Amino acid sequence: MKSNSLRVLLVGYGNVGKALRKMVRERAPSLGLNVRIEGIVTRRGIMLGDSEEFRKTKDGTPIDALNEVSPDLVIDVSSANYETGEPSFSLYMEALSRGIAVITANKAPLALKYAEIVAQAKKHGAFLGFQATVMSGTPSINLLRLLRGSTILKIRGILNGTTNYILTRMDQGLEYFQALREAQEKGYAEANPEHDVNGFDAAAKLTILTNFAMGRNISIRDVDFSGIANVTLSRIEEAKRRSRKLKLVAVSEGKTSKVSLTEVSPEDPLYHVDGVINTLDIHSDIQEVVITGPGAGPQNAAFGVFSDIVLMSNGLI
Amino acid sequence: MKSNSLRVLLVGYGNVGKALRKMVRERAPSLGLNVRIEGIVTRRGIMLGDSEEFRKTKDGTPIDALNEVSPDLVIDVSSANYETGEPSFSLYMEALSRGIAVITANKAPLALKYAEIVAQAKKHGAFLGFQATVMSGTPSINLLRLLRGSTILKIRGILNGTTNYILTRMDQGLEYFQALREAQEKGYAEANPEHDVNGFDAAAKLTILTNFAMGRNISIRDVDFSGIANVTLSRIEEAKRRSRKLKLVAVSEGKTSKVSLTEVSPEDPLYHVDGVINTLDIHSDIQEVVITGPGAGPQNAAFGVFSDIVLMSNGLI
Repeated sequence: MKSNSLRVLLVGYGNVGKALRKMVRERAPSLGLNVRIEGIVTRRGIMLGDSEEFRKTKDGTPIDALNEVSPDLVIDVSSANYETGEPSFSLYMEALSRGIAVITANKAPLALKYAEIVAQAKKHGAFLGFQATVMSGTPSINLLRLLRGSTILKIRGILNGTTNYILTRMDQGLEYFQALREAQEKGYAEANPEHDVNGFDAAAKLTILTNFAMGRNISIRDVDFSGIANVTLSRIEEAKRRSRKLKLVAVSEGKTSKVSLTEVSPEDPLYHVDGVINTLDIHSDIQEVVITGPGAGPQNAAFGVFSDIVLMSNGLI
Repeated sequence: MKSNSLRVLLVGYGNVGKALRKMVRERAPSLGLNVRIEGIVTRRGIMLGDSEEFRKTKDGTPIDALNEVSPDLVIDVSSANYETGEPSFSLYMEALSRGIAVITANKAPLALKYAEIVAQAKKHGAFLGFQATVMSGTPSINLLRLLRGSTILKIRGILNGTTNYILTRMDQGLEYFQALREAQEKGYAEANPEHDVNGFDAAAKLTILTNFAMGRNISIRDVDFSGIANVTLSRIEEAKRRSRKLKLVAVSEGKTSKVSLTEVSPEDPLYHVDGVINTLDIHSDIQEVVITGPGAGPQNAAFGVFSDIVLMSNGLI
């Protein structure tokens, strides 16, 4: 698997893709890594070669691009399709079957079909990296890699920054719609924030974490999730009077995975996580470890992908 | 470096060594790792082979044991000698010169002669693991490996559990000597707790972290450290009235490394770290990440060593 020279096919070229291209050019050489983008494929078509501006070379699908470029590594920074996971899912299965590594920041394929994708990677001895799908560049999936040898009994987290921002601002006195509008103005929430506020985004991340950490085989359909749209200022203030906060907590323990609005007390490590910050609380048979950091942003997501490139290139040793 | 079969020379056989032996036997096989202890060397002499009870085979030094066993990996869980770092320092230099990997939980050699040891490992392409020297099994050194590609601008931490326990109990109303005695009764502090309470232990850990994270070349003599022995209950209560806590904070930024009693406010991630728990706050040019977990205990230190074995065996991928 050691390989200091990587020819890359990039899938998707939005803000994360652009940040990643810049990061690779600026940061890979000093780590002794030669990472070259040989093609980019988006919904608009295929660009062969590399340039800052996307210029279509020809029409074609991601699989067409895979055939054209024959890369060492496919990096998926395209947007999530939670209906089918396509076209990313079929692309991963094809690339992995050829022994081509896959690194993804796109949650949908893994939230829908984790076991199939991981089995394909193992069968063909191909690297599969997905740090950026959970907490962006803050080590979550890759932190769990460091904990191998321990048995993970329980994971809890604040995995969606938008809802945590809204709840934090409500705790400071804003009404729900004021806080949501502010989150949108600051670019934390999408114009259509449905997947954030209804708990779906956190559930997708919990699905991936749970499968990886606890050896489970669940899809997002197995997660019992609800969101924050029904939370009222009076309920938050009532909790505050008892020194509690309401947080959208994702938790897996035993056979149960759930995302729900939860009251937390000051002794809880999740209590002190405010704003757009994410946190993951990992209970193993050895120890409890908590990691906190940013969970979104183009630069952060790009770093999540970049750290997988370093990992697969044996750059950790 | 990929190697699923490792023949080990174990240096030191106290509580950590015993916990490690058990952990390796119970947990390595399920990760596909064949780790065999081929010899143990302590101040009492050399035992060839492996058994739960140390039975001396012959007299000899660690270097003698190295020659006898010719291992793939030396694991040092012996106690720290901060005068010279010996006999561990010379053992590492000799083992690394032969391309033999070294994993250590012993802080002294790296706190005294970090640059020499790391240069020797690089020169001979030998793996050097030292996760367990800082925060035991809670990823600190190895978390920093995951952050490669980012530039670390500042690290701050609570790196000594004994002093944090004492300060936490004083914050709850105990006098210094009551809190210290309690820490000793619970086994957190040594009978001679000098290296904990005077800041030396935290300074040793800060030295290792700073060199690794920030590409520096300092020894513990370059760290400006002080401890908690002069802290009074009235000073803690005075801070508490202003919603502050006193913590023994280790910090490196720019060219400065310092361990000192520091007032922290509730907005500071270190404020909420109470008891024997450790925490590390890492500021890079990409993100701020905070990790919290246990920093001591035989099982925890053994897990820190174990996670380095997994890392060197490519078990993260």
